[in-house]
Amino acid sequence: MYPHKYLFDFTKAVFEKMGCGEDDANIIADVFIAAELRGHASHGMIRIKDYYQLWKAGRINVNPDVRIIHESPSTAVVDGDGAVGMVAANRSMDIAIEKAKTAGTGWVATRGSNHFGIAGYYAMKALKHDMIGICLTNANPLVAPTNSISRMMGTNPIAVAIPAFNNPPFVADFATTPIARGKLAVAEKKGEKVPYGLVQDNTGKPSDRPEILKEGGSMLTLGGDNLHGNHKGYCLSAIVDIFSAVLGGANFGPFVPPSVAYLPLLNEKTGEGTGHFFGTMRIDAFQPADGFKKMMDKWIDTFRASKPAEGYDKVLIPGDPEREKEKLLVKEGITIVSAIKEDLKVIAKDLGINFE
Amino acid sequence: MYPHKYLFDFTKAVFEKMGCGEDDANIIADVFIAAELRGHASHGMIRIKDYYQLWKAGRINVNPDVRIIHESPSTAVVDGDGAVGMVAANRSMDIAIEKAKTAGTGWVATRGSNHFGIAGYYAMKALKHDMIGICLTNANPLVAPTNSISRMMGTNPIAVAIPAFNNPPFVADFATTPIARGKLAVAEKKGEKVPYGLVQDNTGKPSDRPEILKEGGSMLTLGGDNLHGNHKGYCLSAIVDIFSAVLGGANFGPFVPPSVAYLPLLNEKTGEGTGHFFGTMRIDAFQPADGFKKMMDKWIDTFRASKPAEGYDKVLIPGDPEREKEKLLVKEGITIVSAIKEDLKVIAKDLGINFE
Repeated sequence: MYPHKYLFDFTKAVFEKMGCGEDDANIIADVFIAAELRGHASHGMIRIKDYYQLWKAGRINVNPDVRIIHESPSTAVVDGDGAVGMVAANRSMDIAIEKAKTAGTGWVATRGSNHFGIAGYYAMKALKHDMIGICLTNANPLVAPTNSISRMMGTNPIAVAIPAFNNPPFVADFATTPIARGKLAVAEKKGEKVPYGLVQDNTGKPSDRPEILKEGGSMLTLGGDNLHGNHKGYCLSAIVDIFSAVLGGANFGPFVPPSVAYLPLLNEKTGEGTGHFFGTMRIDAFQPADGFKKMMDKWIDTFRASKPAEGYDKVLIPGDPEREKEKLLVKEGITIVSAIKEDLKVIAKDLGINFE
Repeated sequence: MYPHKYLFDFTKAVFEKMGCGEDDANIIADVFIAAELRGHASHGMIRIKDYYQLWKAGRINVNPDVRIIHESPSTAVVDGDGAVGMVAANRSMDIAIEKAKTAGTGWVATRGSNHFGIAGYYAMKALKHDMIGICLTNANPLVAPTNSISRMMGTNPIAVAIPAFNNPPFVADFATTPIARGKLAVAEKKGEKVPYGLVQDNTGKPSDRPEILKEGGSMLTLGGDNLHGNHKGYCLSAIVDIFSAVLGGANFGPFVPPSVAYLPLLNEKTGEGTGHFFGTMRIDAFQPADGFKKMMDKWIDTFRASKPAEGYDKVLIPGDPEREKEKLLVKEGITIVSAIKEDLKVIAKDLGINFE
């Protein structure tokens, strides 16, 4: 069990040793720890090794010139210059927030970035400005379009954060697949089957074996099978891909560069790096912020008071599970499984820092 | 079989007889016929009776003052003044398009509206301006949040239209439930079962009986059951509800007024009428439009070339099925089932116009 502060300091030190400036290392560490605290460990400490190896392979720019390359009053395209994803994403969201201050809303498409951790982190940055925050990103292709067996899309998440008055904010942060890639990996490690409707084999037959992904299989989109509307999940995932990549000039779909160094760079590219999309809407560009936030309180109270199904004691609001997890882990500390612990020790030794 | 022009003229005449101005009646008829031609008959001629009865009950304003009540450079809130939904929605999308011309993007939340037909119609209006178009709406509550049995949300659709260069545009238009309400009604009429994962009974038990909706049951969100990520569909549906209603001051979730006159108005309201949300993004606020549209051609060609699963001969792009349907029905005409035909004859007689 590690206090989150210990993991924050370690993560910051790792990225500083890799050559990142202090401000950048702070942001990077903050996103890593936010992922752990919010219960998305698949985007937490386990990813440090990936970044470390990408850096050793010269596939990450630790001194990037993250900059606006095109803009209008409410929009910008940001070039991440090969930055650690958190650095490009954080700067892009700041630009979206600045745009909204004058134009009412801000919309930023970012190219030349890398894996940025959890989308919800950036969406939530809007909250303290009384803005709605939105964040999308594309990701390494693992997911097949409806009626296809080709891996064309990532788990392409959508995050939306909406402020309330007395209630905690509404924060949705979800992949556009029925299940996260990380959860399939866990099931595979445990030798467990998964429900049909999450993955398929290399002919498109339904499978309950998570290891099918290593045998030419693919993940299905939200909806699962055709009878349950997986073409809608395909639409969603495609929209995230186009907004994140085509709009700003990043690589789309099957051309997204691998976020791990053990996979080679692709031969063909359709843009620069991984792409993200950020949105901000200033509440008072629509109505006075307090009135809106009080109505959001009523929205949240109304939905919280809806009748639970048999066997459940309450109905949740998006953001509840992550907030509960965070409260717990801030107090109790973060568990790191031993394989990851060993990886981090090796990295620490390589970089001449300490991890115990 | 009716030529679409015949149904357009009839629909226009119905709404003119109800007191709508000619421009408004034109738009209304255009949306009704677009729904039929694109294969969404559940939003087509079948709904004329609903509107007619709402009008007779004095629940529709045929001479509305649709107007902006709050704005910023990139945003507006529009009050529909109780208009036919198509009128309020069409005007709102026009405002979003105008906003984008100067601010780069336009975002309009509309209150005081009614059922507006198909969301894709408004999203597609952006295409000829080299803009991406977005349209959301809330709707009568039929759908339960995850682990709840209360009907809290509508089938809350999302439409996104994205222009391409030589290819036809990408047009996604889908409900945030696994299946449309209309398709459940069809299954019920035929006495057919539906797959588990679409509806549940009044205790939250899975059901394969579409008629369960008349017995206190509810529809499930996209994803279907918990194992297939229905909490993500809940997030989506909730986001659509909040953007469409809370942002502009319409009624949210369970307070959305009925779109049929045989259901009484609710006792409590949280805003005005039904709510919609419209978005436009000018492509050249991000990059030159032609470059983007050519990259969209490549996106579409790439996805179209992905490998079909066994038993399928091609992979579709969002918008393909509706476009194929439209091509066919423009040529062959539109079938109206006899029960609807009889309803339309009664309405025609009442209004002193002709329908055969």
